[in-house]
Amino acid sequence: MPTFRLKLATLFAILLHGLFVSSAFSQDDPLPSWNDGPTKSAIIEFVESVTREGSPTFVRPINRIAVFDNDGTLWPEDPIPFQLAFALDELKRLAPSHPEWKNNPVLQAGLNDDIPTLLTSGEKGLIEILDASHTKITTTEFDKRVQNWSRTAKHPRFKRRYLDLTYQPMQEVLRYLRANKFKTWIVSGGGADFMRVWSRRVYGIPPEQVIGSVGNTKFGMQEGLPVLIKEPGVSFVDDKTGKPVGIHRQLGRRPIAAFGNSDGDLEMLQWTTIERKTSFGLIVHHTDAVREYAYDAHPKSSGKLVKALEQAKGNGWVVVDMKNDWATIFSPEK
Amino acid sequence: MPTFRLKLATLFAILLHGLFVSSAFSQDDPLPSWNDGPTKSAIIEFVESVTREGSPTFVRPINRIAVFDNDGTLWPEDPIPFQLAFALDELKRLAPSHPEWKNNPVLQAGLNDDIPTLLTSGEKGLIEILDASHTKITTTEFDKRVQNWSRTAKHPRFKRRYLDLTYQPMQEVLRYLRANKFKTWIVSGGGADFMRVWSRRVYGIPPEQVIGSVGNTKFGMQEGLPVLIKEPGVSFVDDKTGKPVGIHRQLGRRPIAAFGNSDGDLEMLQWTTIERKTSFGLIVHHTDAVREYAYDAHPKSSGKLVKALEQAKGNGWVVVDMKNDWATIFSPEK
Repeated sequence: MPTFRLKLATLFAILLHGLFVSSAFSQDDPLPSWNDGPTKSAIIEFVESVTREGSPTFVRPINRIAVFDNDGTLWPEDPIPFQLAFALDELKRLAPSHPEWKNNPVLQAGLNDDIPTLLTSGEKGLIEILDASHTKITTTEFDKRVQNWSRTAKHPRFKRRYLDLTYQPMQEVLRYLRANKFKTWIVSGGGADFMRVWSRRVYGIPPEQVIGSVGNTKFGMQEGLPVLIKEPGVSFVDDKTGKPVGIHRQLGRRPIAAFGNSDGDLEMLQWTTIERKTSFGLIVHHTDAVREYAYDAHPKSSGKLVKALEQAKGNGWVVVDMKNDWATIFSPEK
Repeated sequence: MPTFRLKLATLFAILLHGLFVSSAFSQDDPLPSWNDGPTKSAIIEFVESVTREGSPTFVRPINRIAVFDNDGTLWPEDPIPFQLAFALDELKRLAPSHPEWKNNPVLQAGLNDDIPTLLTSGEKGLIEILDASHTKITTTEFDKRVQNWSRTAKHPRFKRRYLDLTYQPMQEVLRYLRANKFKTWIVSGGGADFMRVWSRRVYGIPPEQVIGSVGNTKFGMQEGLPVLIKEPGVSFVDDKTGKPVGIHRQLGRRPIAAFGNSDGDLEMLQWTTIERKTSFGLIVHHTDAVREYAYDAHPKSSGKLVKALEQAKGNGWVVVDMKNDWATIFSPEK
């Protein structure tokens, strides 16, 4: 049946043509929200160098692991980290059933959005806020609360839902890396339980690729059903020297690319890049007070960037100048 | 060029034929080392039920997660768990540089293979052995030591290298699940650092899909290079109620299939199967003293199986009778 075979061959030719064309097209500009310049070129050159077969910098897909800080790297951390906004909203929602909170100055500061008092209360105060808003419930109930909150709560300045405030240029980097067979992971000081509720929807990152701070959790049977209860206290803080430890505990090997924005990411950048054959480090420098925020040495919140910036040049880390490198800041609203 | 096209079409026809044939062949008997019977059928029926599109029990590939205990489930745990064999061999190797161990009765028991004394020293004694053999070194040095040991150390009864002692029927289950788009994870009381050195080579499971007990680890810079130091002490025990907690911490969601062999796996089986729409639980019952070991209520080592066995029937967990269900015990030596 030569006619049939001819048709089949034509069909395959069209299919193959389609594959090549679409692949060439997608490689045209993988980072359209980045202005042309050395920052954008550095990202593309790194990806091309590890994916070019036969090159001395080639990395097998199995080892293409990239880690991303979240707050300040994939979305804003001002005026307060989004998880703290969730905690304060939860405090207000739950306060009517907790008259005893009236006697607690830290919780009162939280209920009154008195951020300066909260900040002076330090880590101890923060843990009190987290314990009151995040614990003594099952993990299932917690997931539901995060979901409910994220459906309506909006950022005070940008008037968008928090989950709609991701950086478009970084979303493009995530997709570009995955298109090149990287696995993308979050490594954040934020709570793993908080981020996992929406990490797949917001970043295309499944829960098992989220590394974060971890609270105490206890297994038990309630009326014949297995439950995990979120208990007061923090068992692991995934920040600063905790980040390489968190990567080791969960990933079990070193990434080849790390993206951060503050001194909290310094050790993760060191662990990923120093004395490695092939690696990439990037710091998002917040320089755009008009479209987002500008801060480094004197931050109002958690994103202090001094040491990591000093060490960037010596370690070959790419520093993003948000104002000049990013054509667009935020992803389109969903 | 019709001739060329004809050849191309023929080539495609051959390729497609090859694909269909190999796929049909591999589905012929995915579990050749399992004797026919209700146990083997139950595994196959579960996999077919979750992969049949349109069926009410269909599970999307993204949610097909199966967790496996290691010691006693994927390989033996007698006469002592293999990691303890490693620890005792390391003690002997390191003893000449540690004259102070002479004054420590637990370490002396370890050096003399005096297992009864070790067992009576309980968890505290075990941690002393682990601290002496596993810590105060970098994670890189530890990996090297595990690798060196695994190249030569042999099981006292089976005279094979430990890593060559996996159960062939369970290796087939791992491969069968992965061929059906499951992700396979290890959830073991053993040390994550120990297992990750060889998990990919031995089971095809990458380091990030290994959940285990975790020691204290500290990040630091040594002569300008970043290192992780394994420190004394245990920060997380992935056993019993710890298993669902470990799954939650690392995977962040519930598996749909769990495979274990002892009461240490009870809570993992409960968490995976109770009140779930689609799920599967399996217990390997060691009933073959001739080819492997026979034990449950009175084990010499860690594999006590009483409570989980009692609860198997009520929860619909499949119990493997090793003697009668497994045609072969061990995988071929590599």
